[in-house]
Amino acid sequence: MGDAKTVRVPARDLPVPSYLSPIAQTILANPSYDGGPAAFPDQDDREGWRAHIRMAEAGLMPMLQQISPSSPAEVIERDLDGLCVFDVTPEDLPAGSGGVVLDLHGGGLFLCGGELCRLMAIGIATRLKTKVWSPDYRMPPDHPYPAALDDAMTAYRALLEQYDPSRIVVHGASAGGNLAAALILRARDEGLAMPAGAILQTPEADLTESGDSFHVNLGVDPGLAPLMPVNLLYANGHDLTDPYLSPLFGDFTKGFPPTILTTGTRDLFLSNTVRMHRALRAADIPAELHVVEAAGHGNFSGAPEGDEIDKEIRHFLESVLSQKTVTGGEGS
Amino acid sequence: MGDAKTVRVPARDLPVPSYLSPIAQTILANPSYDGGPAAFPDQDDREGWRAHIRMAEAGLMPMLQQISPSSPAEVIERDLDGLCVFDVTPEDLPAGSGGVVLDLHGGGLFLCGGELCRLMAIGIATRLKTKVWSPDYRMPPDHPYPAALDDAMTAYRALLEQYDPSRIVVHGASAGGNLAAALILRARDEGLAMPAGAILQTPEADLTESGDSFHVNLGVDPGLAPLMPVNLLYANGHDLTDPYLSPLFGDFTKGFPPTILTTGTRDLFLSNTVRMHRALRAADIPAELHVVEAAGHGNFSGAPEGDEIDKEIRHFLESVLSQKTVTGGEGS
Repeated sequence: MGDAKTVRVPARDLPVPSYLSPIAQTILANPSYDGGPAAFPDQDDREGWRAHIRMAEAGLMPMLQQISPSSPAEVIERDLDGLCVFDVTPEDLPAGSGGVVLDLHGGGLFLCGGELCRLMAIGIATRLKTKVWSPDYRMPPDHPYPAALDDAMTAYRALLEQYDPSRIVVHGASAGGNLAAALILRARDEGLAMPAGAILQTPEADLTESGDSFHVNLGVDPGLAPLMPVNLLYANGHDLTDPYLSPLFGDFTKGFPPTILTTGTRDLFLSNTVRMHRALRAADIPAELHVVEAAGHGNFSGAPEGDEIDKEIRHFLESVLSQKTVTGGEGS
Repeated sequence: MGDAKTVRVPARDLPVPSYLSPIAQTILANPSYDGGPAAFPDQDDREGWRAHIRMAEAGLMPMLQQISPSSPAEVIERDLDGLCVFDVTPEDLPAGSGGVVLDLHGGGLFLCGGELCRLMAIGIATRLKTKVWSPDYRMPPDHPYPAALDDAMTAYRALLEQYDPSRIVVHGASAGGNLAAALILRARDEGLAMPAGAILQTPEADLTESGDSFHVNLGVDPGLAPLMPVNLLYANGHDLTDPYLSPLFGDFTKGFPPTILTTGTRDLFLSNTVRMHRALRAADIPAELHVVEAAGHGNFSGAPEGDEIDKEIRHFLESVLSQKTVTGGEGS
């Protein structure tokens, strides 16, 4: 097999399902991406990439700023030898919840550092009702692979000095899901203790973009374009199929913690997510999958449909953090 | 919201993913349905429906006959006051596996009775390594709703006389998933004991066909067409939103057993399946979801990708059947 056989699918008009929440309907009715060619700078045009990033982040900032966190949170900026980590503690943190989530932020592996990282960390901490560490990891064009993963490792090593690994859960959405899974594979390969669990939300598990949904959901996902130029910028010549760049291709039989994965039926990363789920299950890793009806990349975050997923993740967090008692020190 | 806003998706060529098994690639490369209008007889044309059914079943028979069961099985034809039930026991049934699967066969609620039902029951029993009861339930045009569900209830009541409910798991694929879920809702409403679990494979949970994948995966699914004319024939004037006809709309807070659900990313019933999963989870019912990459309706059954799903279902069966010890009699 493996021939060039394709199946032609005619154009169609997709109605916005009337049974979705009003917020979810609004998201689908106002797509920001139509499936056409997305414009990115040339690979070597560093100033072009910097300008692209500035413009994209300027567009994202007001969206993140207008999302009021569901509760107040204290944010400490930790300095790990030059790596800034946002250490977020929600004020309404339940007593006795001595876990911490290491969050790797999303943004295509090239966006959402600094203030955007801080805002997203607050959002995750308050939605999931957990303490969060979110490293403001380095990114291209100036810091391609392996800088971001190195920084994630730095943060994980620092957490291991303060927490028993059974109290640590790694979280990542989108590009953060790539880094979260890659971090766990690399930590395992380097002999570090495994965290208690992994939360992979619509993870960018495959930088080669080989999944079927890159075709089926192209332009069906209301917001996400293929990102190959960005992936190549990030990889900086490294093999995209290396499991540290595309964790989907990792060997999970060597160990991986219990994992929860989330996606939507219109998600461009639907295949990334379900293939990652199947790869984990093929290695007998406990892994649960949640798919949001009609949601694109982002799982209707902020809508009631997204709140349901947050509830599943909180349930998962409670479950994996209750598996073992704390044996090591537990820092502030 | 709820306005008529639609999103236009252009025509596209879907490649057959090269990382799929050869069998799965062959299935995708040879679609039997292209997304165009499917021809069905007029609602009142009973002879037309009978001819349609004969032709469709004649096409299905050789496919089922050529699938050799993975192991021999003994088949007893039980007669429950005129309802034939195929009682299938695989010869390699593991010792001590005292459970039974009540299977409601697929076939759009109008196909696959008789010999086709018998062959499918053998297939399920040998693949899942379990004893199976499969009622050859009545179907339209001569026996519309509620005949099939009545027959399913007859079989379930008969099983309850021989097995503790903790040893019974209800299974259905496609239309059988509709009947399996509807049976459980009706049994619950009538005060019968709940089975230990439910296996819903790409279930036809919503006869109104409101799900988003009825649009997104139209012609993307290589084999399944929308079935509204059949649904109306089956309903025979009954409200399609009645939970006994569309179990997706049931109230699961009143009780439902642990459930495993399976589908594929190209499945026309992807939305049926993930919405059913979310409805169960919203009611805090233990429910796990497995989605096969690029699979249409049928989950690549017979391919290695389908074998993985069978393994998940066997795992689920072992799990729910180990929850309680047998308290009642356990028949042959």
